[in-house]
Amino acid sequence: MSLPQKTVFVISDGTGITAETFSHSVLSQFTHAYSFKQVREPFVTTVSKMKEIIESINEIAEKDSPPIIFSTIVDQELVEHLRHSKGIFLDIFGACVNTLELSLQIRSKPTVGRSHLDASSESYHKRIEAINFTLAHDDGQFIQGLQEADVILIGVSRSGKTPTSLYLAMQHSLKVANFPLIPEDFERGQLPKTIKPFKHKLFGLSIQPERLSEIRSERRPNSQYASIEQCRHEVAESEHLMRMQGITWLSSTTKSIEEIATTVLQILKLNTKTY
Amino acid sequence: MSLPQKTVFVISDGTGITAETFSHSVLSQFTHAYSFKQVREPFVTTVSKMKEIIESINEIAEKDSPPIIFSTIVDQELVEHLRHSKGIFLDIFGACVNTLELSLQIRSKPTVGRSHLDASSESYHKRIEAINFTLAHDDGQFIQGLQEADVILIGVSRSGKTPTSLYLAMQHSLKVANFPLIPEDFERGQLPKTIKPFKHKLFGLSIQPERLSEIRSERRPNSQYASIEQCRHEVAESEHLMRMQGITWLSSTTKSIEEIATTVLQILKLNTKTY
Repeated sequence: MSLPQKTVFVISDGTGITAETFSHSVLSQFTHAYSFKQVREPFVTTVSKMKEIIESINEIAEKDSPPIIFSTIVDQELVEHLRHSKGIFLDIFGACVNTLELSLQIRSKPTVGRSHLDASSESYHKRIEAINFTLAHDDGQFIQGLQEADVILIGVSRSGKTPTSLYLAMQHSLKVANFPLIPEDFERGQLPKTIKPFKHKLFGLSIQPERLSEIRSERRPNSQYASIEQCRHEVAESEHLMRMQGITWLSSTTKSIEEIATTVLQILKLNTKTY
Repeated sequence: MSLPQKTVFVISDGTGITAETFSHSVLSQFTHAYSFKQVREPFVTTVSKMKEIIESINEIAEKDSPPIIFSTIVDQELVEHLRHSKGIFLDIFGACVNTLELSLQIRSKPTVGRSHLDASSESYHKRIEAINFTLAHDDGQFIQGLQEADVILIGVSRSGKTPTSLYLAMQHSLKVANFPLIPEDFERGQLPKTIKPFKHKLFGLSIQPERLSEIRSERRPNSQYASIEQCRHEVAESEHLMRMQGITWLSSTTKSIEEIATTVLQILKLNTKTY
């Protein structure tokens, strides 16, 4: 049975990323009844652009059914226009801002599209540095500067180290290095020598051997590297090594990159910040 | 004058990323009056964990002032506990879900922590493929497979191509290649030969020469490469080349990675999606 499709407008005076993330979470509670077609309209700051969008909203409302509108528009004149369109209007910040104004007894200062880091700010600089560091220290390719790393991920080849590292750098401005655990390490029963001094910032990834074999097979079908025996061996050895060395690790098998990254932050106590 | 500090709890049954993004946007409207210390509490799914958190909320409320609580908890029993804490409770999905239930005349199906892609899903696979492709095609290092690219970014060295590429791959599952424009290209007055057949998916980044010189100086201080004359020359030549070849480009100087990425999606008409 195919579900009826509903159009969703995500409208923002900035990038619309907050509104989009938010809309996905809310609409995931309605996917038993509808499928959704999302149209993102970023950088909406003029009445003429807003009128153009409202025209397409009204057209869809008349021809088909009222679209859902997630808005983070701050300018009250623009909001008024949108509120009078034929869509289902959701001002996603509205309720929370009102509650906070009442509780804190101060007025909010609406700022248009200012939820991301300015390219000239210090935090922005830190973020770019983190991305550069993480790219340079992917897959153990560069062993200098590890004392600067915030986190060092370890695990067998294809256990999810690279995407997790990049995510932590991009979204949390962390300098992340990652090192593969390889058969030589298992034979020696030791962590790679270069990362041994940094045990306190090591975090391990493991994975189900069956899933690992699938992933490796896409790269190198029918290879020894991708065989289930080899994968079973490497996973067992790497988990044994991490356990012996007292390294915290988790299985990436059924987790999204976001979930792995969040767990790393939580365990390494990096989830507090000030702004 | 230093502002009073308010503690902010971001509490979720999943990663808390939606709640965190949302809370930043809302609180940016109050930074004239407060500074904020954020504590993220992900994966909260048990009463005992919730009680632990409420204890620290109440402690801060009594010793200092009531913390602000952004919650995306779905389980109603847990929500009830939280609602009776001494913090300022904001159920960020609540109002929107109610409005949608009324407008669409259906009940929502609350799903715990399900806003990210499952590691076994097809979309997840697509995302990992996009990240791998993008890493392999960074900085023109690999010229095979460009017909598979969704976007090819071009621009002078250090104009922001790599972070933008990685962001588009990570957050939008796009396969992105990027190519530096170098003096040889300017002399020939032509795009690099390998990317010429893919003009329809090229997008250019430019940057103010002064800013470029600053960025390059961090890498190679006092080099010819970082000199303001060299930067002025390269930027002027690259903009000239992109204009002659009819390539759309923007200046990355004052933009965040998110803003650049959003503009790329908008111009290449990649900002519609279905789920």
